[in-house]
Amino acid sequence: MNAAPGRLYLVPAPLDFGCALQSHLQESMPLETLRITATLQHWVCENAKSTRAYLKRVGEVLPLAAPIQTQTLTELPREIHKKGDHQGGFDARPLLAAALQGHDVGLVSEAGMPAVADPGSSVVRAAHLLGIPVVPLVGPVSLLLALAASGLNGQNFAFVGYVPSQPAERAQRLKALEKLAQQTQQTQLFIETPYRNQALLATLLQTLQASTRLATSSGLTLPGATNHSGDIKTWKAKGWALDNATPTVFAIGA
Amino acid sequence: MNAAPGRLYLVPAPLDFGCALQSHLQESMPLETLRITATLQHWVCENAKSTRAYLKRVGEVLPLAAPIQTQTLTELPREIHKKGDHQGGFDARPLLAAALQGHDVGLVSEAGMPAVADPGSSVVRAAHLLGIPVVPLVGPVSLLLALAASGLNGQNFAFVGYVPSQPAERAQRLKALEKLAQQTQQTQLFIETPYRNQALLATLLQTLQASTRLATSSGLTLPGATNHSGDIKTWKAKGWALDNATPTVFAIGA
Repeated sequence: MNAAPGRLYLVPAPLDFGCALQSHLQESMPLETLRITATLQHWVCENAKSTRAYLKRVGEVLPLAAPIQTQTLTELPREIHKKGDHQGGFDARPLLAAALQGHDVGLVSEAGMPAVADPGSSVVRAAHLLGIPVVPLVGPVSLLLALAASGLNGQNFAFVGYVPSQPAERAQRLKALEKLAQQTQQTQLFIETPYRNQALLATLLQTLQASTRLATSSGLTLPGATNHSGDIKTWKAKGWALDNATPTVFAIGA
Repeated sequence: MNAAPGRLYLVPAPLDFGCALQSHLQESMPLETLRITATLQHWVCENAKSTRAYLKRVGEVLPLAAPIQTQTLTELPREIHKKGDHQGGFDARPLLAAALQGHDVGLVSEAGMPAVADPGSSVVRAAHLLGIPVVPLVGPVSLLLALAASGLNGQNFAFVGYVPSQPAERAQRLKALEKLAQQTQQTQLFIETPYRNQALLATLLQTLQASTRLATSSGLTLPGATNHSGDIKTWKAKGWALDNATPTVFAIGA
């Protein structure tokens, strides 16, 4: 290639995807993140429709460099969504052709930081392989907001993705995470699709020991966000509840 | 208590602490974070001097509710800095007296998110015990920016803090982290004090297998930030280097 390549910007999205209430972008996004986002015209995204909706919101804060309908949006293949982006051996280099031609490209997922608890790492790996500079932009990351709000150990922690949905497997997995947290003092973070929040909480209260600490963060950055943290005994005494509509991060600690 | 308690805000700080160059606050902080920060007059902090310097910068963007010299800044005890905040059994409830009297209180560390790779979790636990609502604010978190920029697995990852400084122990620890990443596909993130960056990198290049992926992010959110990622063979071929002055996050992946 002759021209210097463009950059791959990792563009965070607000955390209100799929929620009834939307936040104002400037509540959770730095102005500089919005400024760079407004300049981009080439995108690799989890979903083109939600990316257009996000760009529309950015355009209400700052003028976009080009109308949305003229921008290039390339969706990541379905099969690497959620799972397989890391292990699938997917070669994302063809998605970065615009960057090789000198254009800056944005990588964006439906909520939060791309490639963190979301697809996108294959695109970042491809950028490194091609010598395209990678620039992560600051924005909301639910996992880290939840960890900070949990009061659990933030100096040693792990995020392990989704827990199994089948009851016996799920209980077994939660007990294994509890044991790991007890033995290593490593906080264990995990997530669930919102409509199973209540079922997961019920299993946690049944399965974990009375002295184990459990924390949840629901609706982070949204009005009415809740952060609960306490041992299982306290959870039962307080009767803290979750709804089945709000994105929630769960954490177990010793 | 009679009045409703205030809130405990978890206030992120910019990532340029101790760096030669300072970023503009609006590059890495949402306006809402700065707005709330400017209203607070009671602080629990890692270091009062750096908190005052941060508030001075906030005051250059938005008017502070009260002059810095009239604000109440309470430092976390030295012994729970870096280590022991989680396991030490430190009772932080007395630090939250102002919140019980109805005032909002800010928790802030020297850089990034308090209670994440930094002290503060004892204060968050105390707030939950006292029924003080905990509100994490969006801001830069170097670990998650580094993870996104690494191209390593972001759907299963761990942060394990500092690695040992003694050479034999260090090599042993790095091999153990490499094995864990290989066996579980869990990305392993860790940090080092900047003046040992080059020594740690040398040990990594000597110790890890040729096919293991190593990623570094230096000076995140600052001009001249670098993100490198590749297998050890590539690192050696490219000759990527680090300086001994810039905060750096390291990650190992399979």
